[in-house]
Amino acid sequence: MCELLGMSANVPTDIRFSFTGLAKRGGATGPHKDGWGIAFYSGRGARCFHDPEPSAKSELAHLVANYPIRSKIVVAHVRRANRGRVALENTHPFTRELWGRVWTFAHNGQLRGVKKRKLTRYLPVGGTDSEHAFCWMLDSLAARWKTLPKPAMLDRAVEDLCRELNEAGVFNAMLSDSRTLYAYCSKRLCYLTRRAPFGPATLLDEDVEVDFAAETTPNDIVTVIATRPLTRNEAWTKLERGTFLAFRDGLPA
Amino acid sequence: MCELLGMSANVPTDIRFSFTGLAKRGGATGPHKDGWGIAFYSGRGARCFHDPEPSAKSELAHLVANYPIRSKIVVAHVRRANRGRVALENTHPFTRELWGRVWTFAHNGQLRGVKKRKLTRYLPVGGTDSEHAFCWMLDSLAARWKTLPKPAMLDRAVEDLCRELNEAGVFNAMLSDSRTLYAYCSKRLCYLTRRAPFGPATLLDEDVEVDFAAETTPNDIVTVIATRPLTRNEAWTKLERGTFLAFRDGLPA
Repeated sequence: MCELLGMSANVPTDIRFSFTGLAKRGGATGPHKDGWGIAFYSGRGARCFHDPEPSAKSELAHLVANYPIRSKIVVAHVRRANRGRVALENTHPFTRELWGRVWTFAHNGQLRGVKKRKLTRYLPVGGTDSEHAFCWMLDSLAARWKTLPKPAMLDRAVEDLCRELNEAGVFNAMLSDSRTLYAYCSKRLCYLTRRAPFGPATLLDEDVEVDFAAETTPNDIVTVIATRPLTRNEAWTKLERGTFLAFRDGLPA
Repeated sequence: MCELLGMSANVPTDIRFSFTGLAKRGGATGPHKDGWGIAFYSGRGARCFHDPEPSAKSELAHLVANYPIRSKIVVAHVRRANRGRVALENTHPFTRELWGRVWTFAHNGQLRGVKKRKLTRYLPVGGTDSEHAFCWMLDSLAARWKTLPKPAMLDRAVEDLCRELNEAGVFNAMLSDSRTLYAYCSKRLCYLTRRAPFGPATLLDEDVEVDFAAETTPNDIVTVIATRPLTRNEAWTKLERGTFLAFRDGLPA
């Protein structure tokens, strides 16, 4: 098991509050002590931080949790290794370029036989099932289109690939091409959309409260997706098994 | 103009001392205020930090300069923009995967007409000549071999590509595939190999001294390559124009 965290917003938004809760689950309030990573998109580029240390103890995670990076799309992951040893190259999110865009991917679950899927253009650097699955998805997309397709066409193709991978086991996953945040719920994912009127929220994993009314403008729309709820006093929506969602600017596309 | 910094070592080595000197040149002791980046290899993986802020003022650069990441290969860059606006996606080093390995690239100089070179598999995310040149190099290598070739064959091919790009202008560059650090001196690069007996060194750009004898073991071999010398009391070797070097484990291959 691992835990996932994603964010889609219509304005560059600070994810520190949510990441603080997730990071605690990496070896303190949760057993996901085999590394962590986070990708923050900024325009066409992405900042990625990875560490094979437990996030609850990682100096780098502490820095990230205190560094006010604002982003419209974030993908994060805390890892409990099952396939692939504890190493930097096995920490999610994985990153590749396709059609001149930065793609990032994080996954929770096990996939039977996924490493037997033939790869041509994208090859894994590490030894996880997850990175192999990501490479296979990008190979499939690259074979189908030479340039970035229209959003609706891409959404449909990504959904089909997620459903096919889910047939091989458990595929809770998040994926982004810097424009859309995709999420697939195989067994467990929930989400929450924060918008005006904003109120206070308290983390489940640490005694931290934030008043979003003081941090936002009335037009802000921020959706947070996570394996388990991160706050105690907000209404998280549990996704049904087999749900695929594409978020752009904080809302389902 | 930009400034480059690379390191190749036979043991995981702390680059903080050298990076502190380079970072000062990003807007304090030097004019390279349009962003900076650094890639630290750790086994097959790489940690990359990028920021479009001036490194002399960047909070993230300050964190990196104080965070003891040990690595056998490092590629770093401070940028003064000429082509491509100041933005995260235009900060070096650029990164791509080829043959299941993480490649990183940083460049100083301008290249005439390089964007007219046709690309097939690797496409730029940002708008710099440098990233286009990097994509063209990887396209050329990917077209030639389906899997990682032997080091000597790859060294020769990378050298040929560097020489071809240099024909288009100024190509001071560093490139790594996680195994070898390649450097090409078009106009300006110098290097220094630190090995036993180690002694003290003082930065040129900041009043910082380190005694490497206290930080190393007698078997350590560490080569640092930079646009200009970083220390005042060590013997830097200036590379001749047109020099190509491949370093493995701290020594020329």
